[in-house]
Amino acid sequence: MDISIYLKERKALVDSAMERILSGAENEPVVIHEAMRYSALDGGKRLRPILVLAACEAVGGANEKALPTACAIECIHTFSLIHDDLPCMDDDDFRRGRLSLHRAYSEAIAMLAGDALFALAFRVICETSGVPSDVLLQVCRIVSEAVGTEGMVGGQVLDMLSEGREVTIEQVQEIHRLKTGALIKASVVVGGLIGRASDMQMQALENYGRNIGLAFQIADDILDLVGDQGKLGKPVGSDLKHKKATYPSVLGVEESARIASEAVAAAISAVESFDERADPLRYIARFVVERES
Amino acid sequence: MDISIYLKERKALVDSAMERILSGAENEPVVIHEAMRYSALDGGKRLRPILVLAACEAVGGANEKALPTACAIECIHTFSLIHDDLPCMDDDDFRRGRLSLHRAYSEAIAMLAGDALFALAFRVICETSGVPSDVLLQVCRIVSEAVGTEGMVGGQVLDMLSEGREVTIEQVQEIHRLKTGALIKASVVVGGLIGRASDMQMQALENYGRNIGLAFQIADDILDLVGDQGKLGKPVGSDLKHKKATYPSVLGVEESARIASEAVAAAISAVESFDERADPLRYIARFVVERES
Repeated sequence: MDISIYLKERKALVDSAMERILSGAENEPVVIHEAMRYSALDGGKRLRPILVLAACEAVGGANEKALPTACAIECIHTFSLIHDDLPCMDDDDFRRGRLSLHRAYSEAIAMLAGDALFALAFRVICETSGVPSDVLLQVCRIVSEAVGTEGMVGGQVLDMLSEGREVTIEQVQEIHRLKTGALIKASVVVGGLIGRASDMQMQALENYGRNIGLAFQIADDILDLVGDQGKLGKPVGSDLKHKKATYPSVLGVEESARIASEAVAAAISAVESFDERADPLRYIARFVVERES
Repeated sequence: MDISIYLKERKALVDSAMERILSGAENEPVVIHEAMRYSALDGGKRLRPILVLAACEAVGGANEKALPTACAIECIHTFSLIHDDLPCMDDDDFRRGRLSLHRAYSEAIAMLAGDALFALAFRVICETSGVPSDVLLQVCRIVSEAVGTEGMVGGQVLDMLSEGREVTIEQVQEIHRLKTGALIKASVVVGGLIGRASDMQMQALENYGRNIGLAFQIADDILDLVGDQGKLGKPVGSDLKHKKATYPSVLGVEESARIASEAVAAAISAVESFDERADPLRYIARFVVERES
């Protein structure tokens, strides 16, 4: 299989579903819908929603059943980026090569657009048709857990507290596990749930998700140091500027890259017993460390 | 029945359940749990969660089944207050007689504590035991709708856009319907759902909820003009300062009070056919306009 075609096709599915979900651009108040669209339809990689679809497919599920949840996860990811970029957080003026939302609109609109995308995520999950209520309820629970203090928000806080301090590799690991790992793992897990994975398969998917979450974040840290600003769409070196705790800042680039490769291998081995329908998961695991943006 | 005893007892139920939900104060990262507790356990009236319980009881439901959802609604209300108070929004230094959260901690922690309370709300609903999944899923959907652009966030945006402008009474009505009305109505509706209300009862509860939402907000606007600063726990006249669109600013205090009374009467008449188990709803309807804080 050609992974680049797979990724392109699934991204197109996600993009058009996101467009549908955010189609109310003419609804009042217009500005908030515009702002939500500005950030949520801006051509990100759609890694998380594609993982939702790929995990669902890997266990034999129909990806259209997972598509609303895939979009919900992307809404949540977008909400977290918007809030992260705000002046009281990372104070980033650019995101994916364009002005960040609070610079294009205002801080108030950015904060509210984030809140609204968060709310929309749950609404979209709840309105999924063709998936049993108890599965959707589990999806909501897993997503809410991945966002709260035991997930993204907890990671953000630890990240802030670590700025400018000496940190151990265990602390960096914990920050990453929560800040980016939790939502990536959740993406894989909810995809599996919607695809009606067996308990064994669920364990394998969790393991896969945990490992690619780690590999993804290390790769991100490395790209921030040695990446191509044009391809990244944002200035490199921002972690250094913010004195962020990262893998390369603690272990160096080479050792970090080695750990990322190990995590990729562990992810692939986690889904070893899956048939060829899990090939996209295998390819995505490699892609997360080989990407250039 | 003595409404003040009812309110006190139900508030105690909510307070201790909130304490349980937010008991992880010693969990890492400590600061975010402290911040969430600072705002969510600060002795508010607990009007919305009490409405959830009262609506559930009014249709013969057991209030302990509605208690998690009641707390979830209070978490969402708290999240909205925290974000509202931020410098980029209303920039309020005080809330309920104490420093607002971003003044007691920091803007970043306040924003994240709001996000975390929002996430916690859904988690708590999803983890409710003894209520069917399809009911809980409906609850999640209704709550998410009440928060997003067709609810609280939409109202916030309209409110911001109206600041300092001439507004019609229809515009004020729309702002209030979304900004505070949506969550109050949702509180009543989800309480009814959990109590397994009939379709007729659900319609009546929706009608009740819409009317007390309106009455509550008008009363709030009037208190902001003529209330007692000590009892309110915040400076009066802040709507004037922010040039907010309010009922009294458009119609005057007397006419606004008349409309609030009419809404109370409409709310009470909506649940006319309910038996004495709906008495708390009837009393609460009067309470929302007679309160002093």
